[in-house]
Amino acid sequence: MAEGCWKNGAVTCIFCSIVKGEARAEIVFADDVVTAFLDLRPLFHGHVLVVPNAHVVTLGDLPLEAVGPFFARVRAMASIMPEALGCEGTFVANNNIVSQSVAHLHVHVVPRVKGDGLRGFFWPRTKYVADEMSAVGAVLSDAFEARVPALSEV
Amino acid sequence: MAEGCWKNGAVTCIFCSIVKGEARAEIVFADDVVTAFLDLRPLFHGHVLVVPNAHVVTLGDLPLEAVGPFFARVRAMASIMPEALGCEGTFVANNNIVSQSVAHLHVHVVPRVKGDGLRGFFWPRTKYVADEMSAVGAVLSDAFEARVPALSEV
Repeated sequence: MAEGCWKNGAVTCIFCSIVKGEARAEIVFADDVVTAFLDLRPLFHGHVLVVPNAHVVTLGDLPLEAVGPFFARVRAMASIMPEALGCEGTFVANNNIVSQSVAHLHVHVVPRVKGDGLRGFFWPRTKYVADEMSAVGAVLSDAFEARVPALSEV
Repeated sequence: MAEGCWKNGAVTCIFCSIVKGEARAEIVFADDVVTAFLDLRPLFHGHVLVVPNAHVVTLGDLPLEAVGPFFARVRAMASIMPEALGCEGTFVANNNIVSQSVAHLHVHVVPRVKGDGLRGFFWPRTKYVADEMSAVGAVLSDAFEARVPALSEV
């Protein structure tokens, strides 16, 4: 259990409490890697949160070796949703720090149908002018380089 | 190359064209697993799309053995963004079928700062009444069961 998740012997993270079975949730799936349960305030009925059992805050905090097992379960959840719920597609999303309501990594898997009203969430878009795009690209590319050696292992 | 990606010998998928270097894009990172480039119409500057080099349409179409390598790179992109761009957090999202503008799997990695105006995208929320929640949970749980044997391998 990560530091900060327990305080004075009591669980202080609601998602850790759900993982441990100490807080109620409508569990959809649980194994030794993840616990998946219904969001109490869903975008649409069937909106699932998939959380790693081991407490980490952001996607970047998820250990590299845990990434495959975790997202294999996210993928499976997104895969079964259309047939199970009669939806056409899914929205899979994760907020890190900003707009992250619970400080325990969680991926939203949300059923979608065309015309469901969520299409506007990805707007408005902005644009790049002059050489802004290449400048931003270079900054990110340089920053990413340091990660490349670790990535060659997976 | 998946069926449907090539037509009469010509690349018909814009993201495959970018992966092959036949269409221009501001590439942030590319290896034999993914190509990551700037979205032309970003939510915010630095908005990256991470796509698998091998053409698949949805997250569910990504082969199980490709999930770890693919999301290791998504995670790395989300990890480097705050320091590289001076943002506070990230939004990591994937639309499958509905709201999916290009039929080649792509994960958005978007820099976020508090008060950037994107917080409203996850609203309005709905709710469950009476036994709707347990009914939906049971449907998803039953549908997920068939996936469990494959998941024990990862």
